[in-house]
Amino acid sequence: FSSQTPIRATLFPGDGIGPEIAESVKQVFKAADVPIEWEEHYVGTEIDPRTQSFLTWESLESVRRNRVGLKGPMATPIGKGHRSLNLTLRKELNLYANVRPCYSLPGYKTRYDDVNLVTIRENTEGEYSGLEHQVVRGVVESLKIITRAASLRVAEYAFHYAKTNGRDRVSVIHKANIMQKTDGLFLKCCREVAEKYPEITYEEVVIDNCCMMLVKNPALFDVLVMPNLYGDIISDLSAGLVGGLGLTPSCNIGEGGIALAEAVHGSAPDIAGKNLANPTALLMSSVMMLRHLNFSDKAEQIQNAIVSTIAEGKYRTADLGGSSSTTEFTNAICNNL
Amino acid sequence: FSSQTPIRATLFPGDGIGPEIAESVKQVFKAADVPIEWEEHYVGTEIDPRTQSFLTWESLESVRRNRVGLKGPMATPIGKGHRSLNLTLRKELNLYANVRPCYSLPGYKTRYDDVNLVTIRENTEGEYSGLEHQVVRGVVESLKIITRAASLRVAEYAFHYAKTNGRDRVSVIHKANIMQKTDGLFLKCCREVAEKYPEITYEEVVIDNCCMMLVKNPALFDVLVMPNLYGDIISDLSAGLVGGLGLTPSCNIGEGGIALAEAVHGSAPDIAGKNLANPTALLMSSVMMLRHLNFSDKAEQIQNAIVSTIAEGKYRTADLGGSSSTTEFTNAICNNL
Ligand SMILES: CC(C)[C@H](C(=O)O)[C@@H](O)C(=O)O
Ligand SMILES: CC(C)[C@H](C(=O)O)[C@@H](O)C(=O)O
Repeated sequence: FSSQTPIRATLFPGDGIGPEIAESVKQVFKAADVPIEWEEHYVGTEIDPRTQSFLTWESLESVRRNRVGLKGPMATPIGKGHRSLNLTLRKELNLYANVRPCYSLPGYKTRYDDVNLVTIRENTEGEYSGLEHQVVRGVVESLKIITRAASLRVAEYAFHYAKTNGRDRVSVIHKANIMQKTDGLFLKCCREVAEKYPEITYEEVVIDNCCMMLVKNPALFDVLVMPNLYGDIISDLSAGLVGGLGLTPSCNIGEGGIALAEAVHGSAPDIAGKNLANPTALLMSSVMMLRHLNFSDKAEQIQNAIVSTIAEGKYRTADLGGSSSTTEFTNAICNNL
Repeated sequence: FSSQTPIRATLFPGDGIGPEIAESVKQVFKAADVPIEWEEHYVGTEIDPRTQSFLTWESLESVRRNRVGLKGPMATPIGKGHRSLNLTLRKELNLYANVRPCYSLPGYKTRYDDVNLVTIRENTEGEYSGLEHQVVRGVVESLKIITRAASLRVAEYAFHYAKTNGRDRVSVIHKANIMQKTDGLFLKCCREVAEKYPEITYEEVVIDNCCMMLVKNPALFDVLVMPNLYGDIISDLSAGLVGGLGLTPSCNIGEGGIALAEAVHGSAPDIAGKNLANPTALLMSSVMMLRHLNFSDKAEQIQNAIVSTIAEGKYRTADLGGSSSTTEFTNAICNNL
């Protein structure tokens, strides 16, 4: 049993396979005796006027109060008059940095075996401003917004992350040769912050070239920081190098020290409720949450159990070429703790 | 000797390694007895007011007259008051579609051996509008412009290309879940065009997911069509899968049937003038130019000679792990004709 007063954390199981993989996290945390008490919140069935979305106001309040949470996949219901659930969370909680580590898993073979990088994505503005309009019939425009405040904030986060995580290079990814003002401002902010971290190697890489280098030689990269859409693209590309979004974790960092860890794969409605889903991404995300809470030992223990279960190869879910159920895979992890 | 009246084509050798690799094309065309007469144009040394760039008006007139050309790398001179050379060409010649085929080269080993796809990039608008401004201090915006006319035009090109090149699938790459108006209009135009090509499988893939699928299983893709920046990104990523921009060709298609084939790699000033450059991308681009001119036999002959020279492996330039000079590699291709 745990002697510590438990920490309360918000849990959004999400839709589709969400509840099953959330169950897996709860089981592993119990087996590892992690002193967390979950406050569970499901996505609502009608639009909450206070959030303008199917997310309930109570669930956002829960994250604001606990300052820490874990989130499964949320499919945005179809229809007009409300906002995407994921975007609402990012906006409402001011989740300004999205941290997506990505490394080759020992024992799970892909074309690459030397990936070990972290994408840090600006998560509140850029191409995701939502500002769009029709100029005249047949001519539409979207606004990409870059601010000095948000750029400095995410750059600071990236350099601080590199320094405190023993990483020695930060690459800023941009297209400032074309978007001279917006990406130019982002670059300028990164340069300013870089000067405060002389011990960290700083480099600037154009987004198209970055993609080419990533598929040729991902080992060239360490920490990467970039505007919103590039982060969306580069993090998926990187995940692809090591097996896909089913294996990679993420954590959103918000103003005031909020941390919302999140599995960024889809809700896979086709296999929902069938005990077939791979809980690895959500489990790995929960490990990021534990690290954020300074539960380093528990984090390490769970992380190792996941990695060795996959490496042993006896219990793997179908997406990894195995035939284990979610429960069997989860049990195997618990046995490896 | 050739019995045909030669066709005049514009040649922009470009900067850096440009003149050397252009020399290689001239030599191979001579050896293959291709009935082309080159009209060579170099980038000017001062700004031409009529083009607002270092490109001379005469060189643009040459392409307009000949309707066909080949272009090496052009580094845009540093400084203010003029436009990027590459962008000026695209804008002035209304080069609306950028066609970038990408396939695994037999004999040149990478992590992938089953790539065979064609990126078709909208080349005149989108994120490349050049419309940017500071809203207030510390807040800047760039406009992404999508028009119905340009979207229909590139979609038409893509489906027509697929049909006439024996390809049976067109994937449109977008982020319409976020940029609902701009990418939404692009999608809508592609759907309209797709209806006229029932024999071609049509699918829509979100850009982030596309990148993940490309690195996991590029054989899933055939022809891909997309807005400007996505094309920039996806074409570099794809090139990376098969060895890089030194090995992949491109051709720009303009209003009125203009075709400007182009090597899209950099001008590599570090090795310029040293007889070390790999001319493959420009040679492959010249093959695209020949196909456009319906010189299918010559195109096939040169293409095969390039591929078999690389596959034999005896003569390779340094970037491919060999130690041949540009001249030795070119001579080997001529011997293989
Ligand atoms: C679901 C979608 C809105 C989201 C994004 O584009 O950010 C997803 O792709 C992600 O990476 O979290
Ligand atoms: C040089 C640059 C302006 C250009 C682009 O961004 O289009 C290049 O990356 C390309 O792909 O042709």
